Amino acid sequence: MSIFIRNALIVTQDARRSVTKGNMLISGNTISYIGKKEFGADETIDAHGMAAMPGFINTHTHVAMSRFKGMLNDINLGGFLKKTFKYDAGRSENDLYDSSLVGIREMIDSGITSFVDLYYSEDIIAKAAEKLGMRAFLSWVTLDEQFTTQKGNPVKNAEHFIMTHKRSRLVSPSIGVQGIYVASDETLAKAKEISERHKTLMHMHLAETRKEVADEISKTGERPVEHLSKIGFLSSRLLAAHCVWLSDREIGLLASKRVNVSWNQISNSKLASGSARIGDMLKKGINVSLGTDSNGSNNSLNMFEAMKFSALSMKSLYGDASAITAQEVLDMITINAAKAIKREDIGSLEIGKLADIVLLRIDTPNMLPSNKSNIVNNIAYSANPSNVAYVLIDGKIVKEQASAKFQNA
Amino acid sequence: MSIFIRNALIVTQDARRSVTKGNMLISGNTISYIGKKEFGADETIDAHGMAAMPGFINTHTHVAMSRFKGMLNDINLGGFLKKTFKYDAGRSENDLYDSSLVGIREMIDSGITSFVDLYYSEDIIAKAAEKLGMRAFLSWVTLDEQFTTQKGNPVKNAEHFIMTHKRSRLVSPSIGVQGIYVASDETLAKAKEISERHKTLMHMHLAETRKEVADEISKTGERPVEHLSKIGFLSSRLLAAHCVWLSDREIGLLASKRVNVSWNQISNSKLASGSARIGDMLKKGINVSLGTDSNGSNNSLNMFEAMKFSALSMKSLYGDASAITAQEVLDMITINAAKAIKREDIGSLEIGKLADIVLLRIDTPNMLPSNKSNIVNNIAYSANPSNVAYVLIDGKIVKEQASAKFQNA
Repeated sequence: MSIFIRNALIVTQDARRSVTKGNMLISGNTISYIGKKEFGADETIDAHGMAAMPGFINTHTHVAMSRFKGMLNDINLGGFLKKTFKYDAGRSENDLYDSSLVGIREMIDSGITSFVDLYYSEDIIAKAAEKLGMRAFLSWVTLDEQFTTQKGNPVKNAEHFIMTHKRSRLVSPSIGVQGIYVASDETLAKAKEISERHKTLMHMHLAETRKEVADEISKTGERPVEHLSKIGFLSSRLLAAHCVWLSDREIGLLASKRVNVSWNQISNSKLASGSARIGDMLKKGINVSLGTDSNGSNNSLNMFEAMKFSALSMKSLYGDASAITAQEVLDMITINAAKAIKREDIGSLEIGKLADIVLLRIDTPNMLPSNKSNIVNNIAYSANPSNVAYVLIDGKIVKEQASAKFQNA
Repeated sequence: MSIFIRNALIVTQDARRSVTKGNMLISGNTISYIGKKEFGADETIDAHGMAAMPGFINTHTHVAMSRFKGMLNDINLGGFLKKTFKYDAGRSENDLYDSSLVGIREMIDSGITSFVDLYYSEDIIAKAAEKLGMRAFLSWVTLDEQFTTQKGNPVKNAEHFIMTHKRSRLVSPSIGVQGIYVASDETLAKAKEISERHKTLMHMHLAETRKEVADEISKTGERPVEHLSKIGFLSSRLLAAHCVWLSDREIGLLASKRVNVSWNQISNSKLASGSARIGDMLKKGINVSLGTDSNGSNNSLNMFEAMKFSALSMKSLYGDASAITAQEVLDMITINAAKAIKREDIGSLEIGKLADIVLLRIDTPNMLPSNKSNIVNNIAYSANPSNVAYVLIDGKIVKEQASAKFQNA
C-alpha cells in the first residue's frame, strides 16, 4: 500500500524546523519521500489548502475514563477522585472497552496519533487501540495492594501485561505508578526493576497537589522528588505527569536525572491544583511534553486546546508574553513527546520515519491567512479539531473528514 | 419562511435554565413554538443527536483585524500595538472589508450569532455583517484627534455612523472609546452625550494593563475607574472590555453604576496583561460576559475556547475548582451578554425571541455521553467548532455543516 500526498504545506518538525511546500510519498508504514517530485500510488490525497504535520502525541491520559465526561466538574482533586472511584467500581470489562473506543476516536478526531495511558486493565485498552489502528503507550498502574481494587498483585499484573504485549506493532506496554501517596518504597523499587528488565517506560503522577507534597514531608521529611531521588527511582525512563509543586532543588534533580515531564495544565487549572513552573524547567533543559489528562478532569482529549491553554497560562503565570513561543509548544506535542517515550521513529516528518501524519485544512476562515511564516503560530493558537482533514497512523488512513472526502470525490 | 427543528436537546437558557428534549418552530425570524408537537414547515431539520442553544454572543472583538492572524505573537501589549498600527496604516477599505468577511465567517463557524466590535470604519464592517447575515453591534471608536489616523473628527464620524445605520435590521450602531490613555475628559463627555442622545451602547477598553493604571494615576491622581466615576462617565450603557486591574473600590463603583464587563481572558493571558478579578465582580453582582478580543491577540474568534479558558483560568487564579461553574460561563456568552447589549429579544430560546440558534452535534466522540444532566458541562468544557452543525441568525440558516447536509439528504 502506498499513499501520495500532493501539494501540502509540510511542517516537518525536523532538526531545522523546516516548513516547505511539497509532496510526500508513504510506502507501507514509512515516509519514503518528501520533495517536489510526483509519484503514482495506490491512493492520492490532494492536500492543496492543507498543512501536513507529524501526528500529535498525548503524553498523559486515562482513556478508559472517557465515559465520565461532564460528570466530574467544578470540584477539586479530593472530591474528584472520590467520585471517580465510585463510578469506576461499578464498571465491567465491556464498559472499559467501550469507553476506550470513544476516547481513542476523540483523540484521532483532534489529530492525536499516539497516546500514553496510565490505568489498570491496559490489556482491554490495548484491544481498543488495535481495533482503531491507534499507536498506544500503555502503562499498567501499580500501587500497594492495600490501596488497589485490581484483582491480584498490581506489580505482577503489570509485568504480565508487558510480557504478553511486548511484540505488538501498535501497542508499547510499560509499567506505571499511581503516585507516591499509595506506593511504598518497595513497590517503587519493584516497578523500577521491571521497567529495567523489560526496557520499558515508567509513567506516574508526581507532585500534582500541595497536599501530596505536605503528606510526603510529614511521612518522610522529604519532598516527593527528593524522596524519589534518594531511593534511586529517577531516570530518563521516567515520564512524570504534572510536576506542579517543585522546589528549585527538585527541578535540578529532575534535570540532572533526565526525567521527562508531561505538562497537564488544563487538568491542573480545572482542578485548581496549581500551575507547573515550566519556564524554570525549560531553563534547566528538562524535556517537557503535553498531556490532556482524562476526560474526567479536562474534559476533552484535544491537543489544540492543550497547546493554546498551556502556552497562554505560562505567559500569564510568568507575566511575560514571550515566556514560551508557539514553536516551543508545538515541539512539546511532537518531537519532545517522541523523545519522552524513547521513539526516534515518530514526532517529525522525515524520510524513514513512520507515517503518523495529520493533514489540517488551512484554507478555512479560522486559519486565514496561513503561510510559511505564520503556520506554526496558527497551528498552536488558531486551529481546532474542525481543521483535521486526514489522520494517518502507521501508514493507514484512520480518519477522513466528511467534507474532505466530498472535495476529493 | 418557516423552519421546524425536530428532536433536539434544547438548552433554553431561560430563567429556570431548563433543558428539554423536543421540537422548535421558527416563523419568520422568531421562535414561535417549543414543545412536543409536530408542524409542517418550509424546511425541517432532523436534530436527533444535536443540542439546540441560543447563538453565542461575543461582547468584544475587532473583526477587521482578522487578517493579522498569526502575525502578532509572543509579544506584550506595547509591542503588539506598535506592530498593529504599522500593519493597519497600509490597509485599503477593501482590505478591511475582506478581513471582516473572514472574521465573521470564523465567528459563525464557531456558533457566534452576535458580536460587539470596536474599530474605526464600522460602516465597512456593517456591510460585511449584512452580506453574511450576521447580527452586529458596532461601536465606532473615538479618541482625541491628535492620536487618531481617522480622517475627520472621530466623534463626528461616530455620530454619522450611528445616524446612517440606526434603522438597520441586523446592525446596531453605537459609539466607542479607545481608552482613557488617548481620550481627554472632553472626548469622553462628547461620547457619553452622543450615546445618550441616540440611546446607544458605549464600548471601551478599560483597565487592561498595569501601565494604563500607573499612567492615569500619574496624570490625574486617580485610578481609571475612579476617574471615570468622578467625571460621571459610568452608567449601564457602558460595556467595558478587560477590567483586569481594578481595586476593590473600583469594583464597587462598576457595580453601583451597573457597568457591564466584557471578560477577555485569552487575550489578557496571551499578552501577559494579567487576569481580571471576575470572582470578586460576580460577588458584587456585576454583569459579566465574554469577549474573544481580536485575531491579533487571541488568535481565534471561538467562544468554546473562551468559555473553557476563562472558567479554568479563574479556578486556577482563585485556587478553587468551584470558583465558577459551567452554567455561569455559559450564561456569560448568552443571557448575560444579551443583557449587556440591552437586547431582551436574544440570549435564550423562548417563544417570541429572535431565532438566533446554534445546533451542536452531541453524538460525536468528543461529546459522549451527553444528556440533560451533563449537557451544560459538555458545551462549556468539551465542545469545539467541529460540533457546530447549523447556525441560524434572525431565522435564516447561515451555516450548515457539510456532514450535516449529507446526513439530512
